Amino acid sequence: MEKTPKTKFEVTVLGCGSATPTPRHNPSAQIVNIHDKLSLIDCGEGTQLQMRTCRQKFMALRNVFISHLHGDHCLGLVGLISSYGLLGRTMDFHVYAHAELQPLLEAQLKLFCHALDFEVVFHAVDPGSHALIYEDRSMEVWTLPLKHSMPCNGFLFKEKPALPHINREMTDAYGIPVCYLNNIKAGENWVMPDGRVIPNARLTKPAAAPRCYAYCSDTAYCPTLIPLIKGVDLLYHETTYDNSKEKKATVHGHSTAGQAGSIAKQAGVRRLMIGHYSASYDDASLLLRQAREVFPNTIAANEGLTVKV
Amino acid sequence: MEKTPKTKFEVTVLGCGSATPTPRHNPSAQIVNIHDKLSLIDCGEGTQLQMRTCRQKFMALRNVFISHLHGDHCLGLVGLISSYGLLGRTMDFHVYAHAELQPLLEAQLKLFCHALDFEVVFHAVDPGSHALIYEDRSMEVWTLPLKHSMPCNGFLFKEKPALPHINREMTDAYGIPVCYLNNIKAGENWVMPDGRVIPNARLTKPAAAPRCYAYCSDTAYCPTLIPLIKGVDLLYHETTYDNSKEKKATVHGHSTAGQAGSIAKQAGVRRLMIGHYSASYDDASLLLRQAREVFPNTIAANEGLTVKV
Repeated sequence: MEKTPKTKFEVTVLGCGSATPTPRHNPSAQIVNIHDKLSLIDCGEGTQLQMRTCRQKFMALRNVFISHLHGDHCLGLVGLISSYGLLGRTMDFHVYAHAELQPLLEAQLKLFCHALDFEVVFHAVDPGSHALIYEDRSMEVWTLPLKHSMPCNGFLFKEKPALPHINREMTDAYGIPVCYLNNIKAGENWVMPDGRVIPNARLTKPAAAPRCYAYCSDTAYCPTLIPLIKGVDLLYHETTYDNSKEKKATVHGHSTAGQAGSIAKQAGVRRLMIGHYSASYDDASLLLRQAREVFPNTIAANEGLTVKV
Repeated sequence: MEKTPKTKFEVTVLGCGSATPTPRHNPSAQIVNIHDKLSLIDCGEGTQLQMRTCRQKFMALRNVFISHLHGDHCLGLVGLISSYGLLGRTMDFHVYAHAELQPLLEAQLKLFCHALDFEVVFHAVDPGSHALIYEDRSMEVWTLPLKHSMPCNGFLFKEKPALPHINREMTDAYGIPVCYLNNIKAGENWVMPDGRVIPNARLTKPAAAPRCYAYCSDTAYCPTLIPLIKGVDLLYHETTYDNSKEKKATVHGHSTAGQAGSIAKQAGVRRLMIGHYSASYDDASLLLRQAREVFPNTIAANEGLTVKV
């Protein structure tokens, strides 16, 4: 069994249906939990309820990243913010989305969310560029330009490299005092009383490689995406249609299961999760089979599913 | 057992929670089915999904009547209209709501619902007056001024009186030809060949009395409502809180269970349905008990419940 890194990096699917919600699937929304900091990607209608149903920490959410301004990706936003107001939230809430949403969001907040005790901070995102839009001590979020029927971008969540682990056998052997170990962890060498320099690499073991998650929905087959998501640990790629509907997919700016598999394969990702299923499918089995024909390490998103990155 | 009238008049509860949705209750929404014509009252977030879950004819909806502009009563509206657009609706959709909603709704439709094949027709409602706002061959809808923390009104759905039934024994006895029976149904007398006039009342039996449904949410205790809902067959009255929270209820423009029962009793309604429960109650049993102490013929709303009026 693979050794699980200690720090958390997982994705919980709140909704993986496409435009028209059905009793089978909710519209798009996911929670990304990196080191217990929660971000929301997309916020279709009913997302706040899905967060509660899926037992996600509703109030702990810091940011929402909206891929594009189709209703099934953002109509749950005002309800979420409104509930935060009613529940007495005081922590600011950050919205990253296409600039066109801002005036409408503000008008809605004015009408539906009087006297909030927190700021809703809007960050305009340029869907056409691959840019760093968020950064904190443990993570970065980058935009991923996609090819859809309106300006649309995915998001790349990158864990920041952790500090190396101390090799206690070696630090003990060199008699390095405990009070100095943080400096070693931070990258310093050790200078012995006789002036000999012990290089940092001999005193530490590298931390687990930082992990990456790419969310790519909604998009037609988009090969320009491949270099941007090279080798990510988990790729969520939309598969609105099965392979027989490639033409329809292209016309509407969506992908088939085979195309999602092909992007995953060409980008050499570790694992693919498919989702954003058209309401015409009773279940995801056909889409999953077709994606696996191209990229075997594929799983199917479902409401409530949590995947470790 | 009471004889059920043949024509349909029933109410289906889609959501009966209050402001913050919980896994127990959806926000406010109800379907009123009068003679197989469907109207929606309020449209909280997730209403379109609830219509599907409750197997209501999603596309057949003609009108939505919005009581007031709190998010839990109208945030599902744009998603519903957006889905109609995607599903190729062509029948116009009528929205009855406070005028303040119109510019915001139009801005949202512009952004989220491009190129609809039907009109969304907005009808501004004055929440302060008791007025006829909708009428067709079989029903009328009247506003009911309520007392809430913002302009708010309920709705009174009145079935129009049906034509009387033909008394076949009498029409046969007088030798009235079948081709003339529709005129008798419409109220005409019958003139015998000898000039004798047979009054209409002798040839017909009165139809079942027209039925009425009153939806009253959200509101504080509001005695001015009583004469407007006198004797209705079914009253839906909000009971956000139990009797111990009367002060809190008044401050927030809501009612206790006892107050709802009192309004029902004073108005002499046939049956009371309570709902709009605060999220703080695990179930409605306490509220139901307190309402029944004042007005025994009370039922508790629940998602999916259909009540014959």
